[in-house]
Amino acid sequence: MKKLWIVYLLLVACFLLYVLDYRAQSRAEEPWMTGGLHGEIDERYVMITFQRGIDYWKSGLKGFEDAAQALGVSVEYRGATQRDIHEQITVLEQAIAKKPAGIAISAIHPVDLTPTINKAVEAGIPVVLFDSDAAGSKAYSFLGTNNYSAGVEAARKMAELTGQRGEVAVVTTPNQQNHQARTDGFTDTISREFQDMQVVTIKNGKGDQLVSRKAAEEILRDHPEISGIFATEANGGIGVAEAVRSYEGNGRPKIISFDTDKGTLDLVRSGDISATMAQGTWNMGYWSLQFLFSLKHGLNTPQSPGSKLVPTQVDTGITVVTRQNVTDYYAK
Amino acid sequence: MKKLWIVYLLLVACFLLYVLDYRAQSRAEEPWMTGGLHGEIDERYVMITFQRGIDYWKSGLKGFEDAAQALGVSVEYRGATQRDIHEQITVLEQAIAKKPAGIAISAIHPVDLTPTINKAVEAGIPVVLFDSDAAGSKAYSFLGTNNYSAGVEAARKMAELTGQRGEVAVVTTPNQQNHQARTDGFTDTISREFQDMQVVTIKNGKGDQLVSRKAAEEILRDHPEISGIFATEANGGIGVAEAVRSYEGNGRPKIISFDTDKGTLDLVRSGDISATMAQGTWNMGYWSLQFLFSLKHGLNTPQSPGSKLVPTQVDTGITVVTRQNVTDYYAK
Repeated sequence: MKKLWIVYLLLVACFLLYVLDYRAQSRAEEPWMTGGLHGEIDERYVMITFQRGIDYWKSGLKGFEDAAQALGVSVEYRGATQRDIHEQITVLEQAIAKKPAGIAISAIHPVDLTPTINKAVEAGIPVVLFDSDAAGSKAYSFLGTNNYSAGVEAARKMAELTGQRGEVAVVTTPNQQNHQARTDGFTDTISREFQDMQVVTIKNGKGDQLVSRKAAEEILRDHPEISGIFATEANGGIGVAEAVRSYEGNGRPKIISFDTDKGTLDLVRSGDISATMAQGTWNMGYWSLQFLFSLKHGLNTPQSPGSKLVPTQVDTGITVVTRQNVTDYYAK
Repeated sequence: MKKLWIVYLLLVACFLLYVLDYRAQSRAEEPWMTGGLHGEIDERYVMITFQRGIDYWKSGLKGFEDAAQALGVSVEYRGATQRDIHEQITVLEQAIAKKPAGIAISAIHPVDLTPTINKAVEAGIPVVLFDSDAAGSKAYSFLGTNNYSAGVEAARKMAELTGQRGEVAVVTTPNQQNHQARTDGFTDTISREFQDMQVVTIKNGKGDQLVSRKAAEEILRDHPEISGIFATEANGGIGVAEAVRSYEGNGRPKIISFDTDKGTLDLVRSGDISATMAQGTWNMGYWSLQFLFSLKHGLNTPQSPGSKLVPTQVDTGITVVTRQNVTDYYAK
């Protein structure tokens, strides 16, 4: 009798064991049904940049990694070491050869990378572009800053800093599309929204600290009443700040710069630069991975066949960094 | 001896039971560590539209539901029954009162809904806008069609249909911002990219089938050589198709319409409308929920403090529907 009781107990235990194991398995195998979006750990997504050493990419890569961790997939970071189109093509070719689950790439050139990007897409590898677009390619999406809108924001901040009046100037790199768009957004907004303000000159700083410093010195000499200068990239902003710091005229123009490298943040903290425009780099990385995951798993395909599989253009937005919030932006 | 053996077996079974249960539990409780993005089933996200009965919202709601199922959260669909701003304000107020996990709303009016949207955001409820924006509000993001880009696509398709030559016309609703943007994208592209084409007239169809039919009859009378007509919304497209079908002049102009309601799709299938522009409504709903989930769980907050928490503008893209792919677009 006692022995039979033990056998029963054993049978019940075995049954419970079986049920629990089944539940654990079904959780692992049917994530969609039990709630939870995740992939496989051997699903490898690759992020490719150029100039891989620079601070600028850190936050975007962090976003890419954060999304991968949340979704239970793997990432790999590859970058051309230089600002060299041939090197980036080689890096992309090597990535394609390994048949990854998806590729997020920041294109060093808007056209020259297109055939290689298309090759990846035609091989069935999901590709999205982030930060720098290659608009004519077959990549499924572009995630980055709308540079025209960033210029609009810079103009409104400049108006706030200067009491909506006076002469302002721009130091930019006119032959680069993203910088031209920032300049256009800035100048269009000044002339459309602020009648007592005027953009008096636009100088070529060549993305270089020294050239931009000289450009700013010329601005200060030719327009001694200048109220503000907008530098469309970080090196230029530092150069302009140097020129203004050693300027001996009446009053100091306000400076608005771009991006959040350490040099620029230090000058925001010291008050030499009044504001700088921070790009949404974490979001670029995070949503690039989410889009690649959606493409890899065909999440949209059965839902709305024939339509675009993921959104085609994503503006990750701009935030204005000033002395008040600058400490948040130092790389951790 | 035998009895002891059974006791051992029982102990081992209990231990295995404990281990399996622990593994199952840790899978459920620590999704971030074991791979898997999911929330709680009592996390309720609300989608709000206007004119809730119409087909147009179906695919967007499906996207919203699909994302909720994948993430293991709940959704609720609320809609004003009419095209009435006061009714939509009431629906939004009621949703706020229930403190949902997030709200995705398509704004019937670009300005009048703003105070109520801001009230939700200030109460700590994540809000995103989809399909129709309220640009000045505190909502975190807008996900919808870039209407200017949609007009650009329509112009390129029109050029393809007409052999890149001849006179074309537009039937639109000039006092609605999204329709004006579609018209601008179309006319700018025709004049910029196709030198042998010309937009000869832009008529007000008032979003009405009959008014648009009469507008198209005028176009056919005044410009008997017209090669194509672009209708910026679906009722207008049907009206234009009726006018062209009963036209007795030489040749029939090609028609491009907008959206994928059944009436339009039937006319694409019959060949009366050559192409219609499909919006990425599933993506609007799917990524609205993903953004709300990211905001609710503060996924970005610790990663890049101070920056925009989710992308600010998402263009969900356009696809061109023709006789070749029309069957894909009928609501399932």
